[in-house]
Amino acid sequence: MHSIAQYRAAFIDALDKSVTVKEPRNLYEPIDYILSLGGKRMRPVLTLLSAEIFGAHYNDAMQAAIAVEVFHNFSLVHDDIMDEAPLRRGNETVHEKWDLNTGILSGDAMLILAYQHFETYEPAVFRELAKLFSKTAIKVCEGQQWDVDFETRNDVSIEEYLKMIEYKTAVLVAAALKMGGIIAKTSEANCDAIYDFGRNLGLAFQLQDDYLDAFGNPETFGKQVGGDIIENKKTYLFLKAREFANGEDAQKLRDWFVSKPENPDKKVTSVKSIFERSGAADATLEAIKDYTFKAFDTLSRMDIADDKKAILRKFGEGLMQRQV
Amino acid sequence: MHSIAQYRAAFIDALDKSVTVKEPRNLYEPIDYILSLGGKRMRPVLTLLSAEIFGAHYNDAMQAAIAVEVFHNFSLVHDDIMDEAPLRRGNETVHEKWDLNTGILSGDAMLILAYQHFETYEPAVFRELAKLFSKTAIKVCEGQQWDVDFETRNDVSIEEYLKMIEYKTAVLVAAALKMGGIIAKTSEANCDAIYDFGRNLGLAFQLQDDYLDAFGNPETFGKQVGGDIIENKKTYLFLKAREFANGEDAQKLRDWFVSKPENPDKKVTSVKSIFERSGAADATLEAIKDYTFKAFDTLSRMDIADDKKAILRKFGEGLMQRQV
Repeated sequence: MHSIAQYRAAFIDALDKSVTVKEPRNLYEPIDYILSLGGKRMRPVLTLLSAEIFGAHYNDAMQAAIAVEVFHNFSLVHDDIMDEAPLRRGNETVHEKWDLNTGILSGDAMLILAYQHFETYEPAVFRELAKLFSKTAIKVCEGQQWDVDFETRNDVSIEEYLKMIEYKTAVLVAAALKMGGIIAKTSEANCDAIYDFGRNLGLAFQLQDDYLDAFGNPETFGKQVGGDIIENKKTYLFLKAREFANGEDAQKLRDWFVSKPENPDKKVTSVKSIFERSGAADATLEAIKDYTFKAFDTLSRMDIADDKKAILRKFGEGLMQRQV
Repeated sequence: MHSIAQYRAAFIDALDKSVTVKEPRNLYEPIDYILSLGGKRMRPVLTLLSAEIFGAHYNDAMQAAIAVEVFHNFSLVHDDIMDEAPLRRGNETVHEKWDLNTGILSGDAMLILAYQHFETYEPAVFRELAKLFSKTAIKVCEGQQWDVDFETRNDVSIEEYLKMIEYKTAVLVAAALKMGGIIAKTSEANCDAIYDFGRNLGLAFQLQDDYLDAFGNPETFGKQVGGDIIENKKTYLFLKAREFANGEDAQKLRDWFVSKPENPDKKVTSVKSIFERSGAADATLEAIKDYTFKAFDTLSRMDIADDKKAILRKFGEGLMQRQV
């Protein structure tokens, strides 16, 4: 087994080599740009890790890992258009740096390029990977649609919210891990278990994102702290606060979440204190722990050595501790 | 062998059954809408025809045919956004009827759904179809990018234009036909020959489109006659006219193609007469014939019975005669 740092370094190296800017440059330059902006590379690293957990060499999973990262970046480019986001990882988004049409078309090309990375695998493995990939990609689109729909709905339930983040975020983490299992040709039971591990960890990851967006350390968080509050996003924190808050706080929360003050400082401070007072902040931390432990529960279903289970557990614990 | 009309009817029936509107409705309703707008269904019909030409039943090629049509409609939805087109087949485009985000996201989903239609095939056939599909889809994106790039370039050569329409239009016709061959498990030589048949026919088809856009019968053409001239599109007709036109006409052509008069009637009439006087109209008709005959030449390389070659030839002749 190699370390997470080694997987990440090997992945970045392979990604660099796989991305080449050719003609028409206006199609391929934005792809090179977005893929070079960095990020945690969590999903592809998980594909490499999973392949080794189930007995293959990580190099055998490299093309699948690239496919997962290229797809993830496709979804970022198109989501950034839909969210009218000016910045991604501190840099201009593709549609800002170029234009709308370039964002749409480069995104389309990335979705196709992702499929092409599976072509190095033999027919049976290729088919299994491509099927899992398509099923996952469709769910990501459905999750994004729900996210868009929720913006204009005031009756979103916790259950609906959890399904939305499962589709939009967690299934890709789950699929990234399962791909490693498919490539290593492990049992179906192991594949299902690592998928569930990833799905639960992905949910914990997104809830952690919600939490850090409000309560992260401004010095290390990377994004504007309070961004979700400013944008009136109905995150887990908000939905729980709406459920828990008492009369006056409930009214204040409703009022804040239909306003977009020019200087948002007072709103962010006030909403954060409602999140804390109502118990929503604690409930979110609790949910993060719950999903992480649900992920760990799947380890008992995996037919792998204990030291490998320990690696997966350590990775999950690391995610739960993260501050960025 | 069945008739083209039978393929079309069977295809429309199968497409209807395959498209179901489920949740989230805002994602799937636009997909149902665009796929129900009709059209010639030329590409999927070619997949079914090709399968029977090479000895399979057309039903075996139905899922590939649906994939091809779903992909074609994906490209229409995203291209209509890029072209800011209000109408498609006489109806509102998706981004007009819904909004930009719906157009982007439904298009994305259609691209993924297209891949899923190949999943009914056994691993080796699936892999071959998906590989051909990805390779084709990437070329369609590249062709669209060139088309966008050419809008702001004044030095587009005939050669570049032909490559653009080959990628944007002809390769999908070629791939649609080759898929029938792959499913029928015919020889590689036959697959290559039918691909070339489709590529040349696709080029002829697009040049015919250019021609009809200017010289089609307004009563039957379906689109606004002269639309390309109004939009200053550098079609084959324009590029040939630029090559052939004499001093005064050359100047008039240059002037018209930097103007967008509110009432375009005079411009359309004037440019059309330059297209005719310069010989560009005749040269375009000649090129359509040339590519159609190039398509027919590939028939000699095909190891199939003469009556089947006659069917392909008849289809090509029908396309060359078309008025819509």
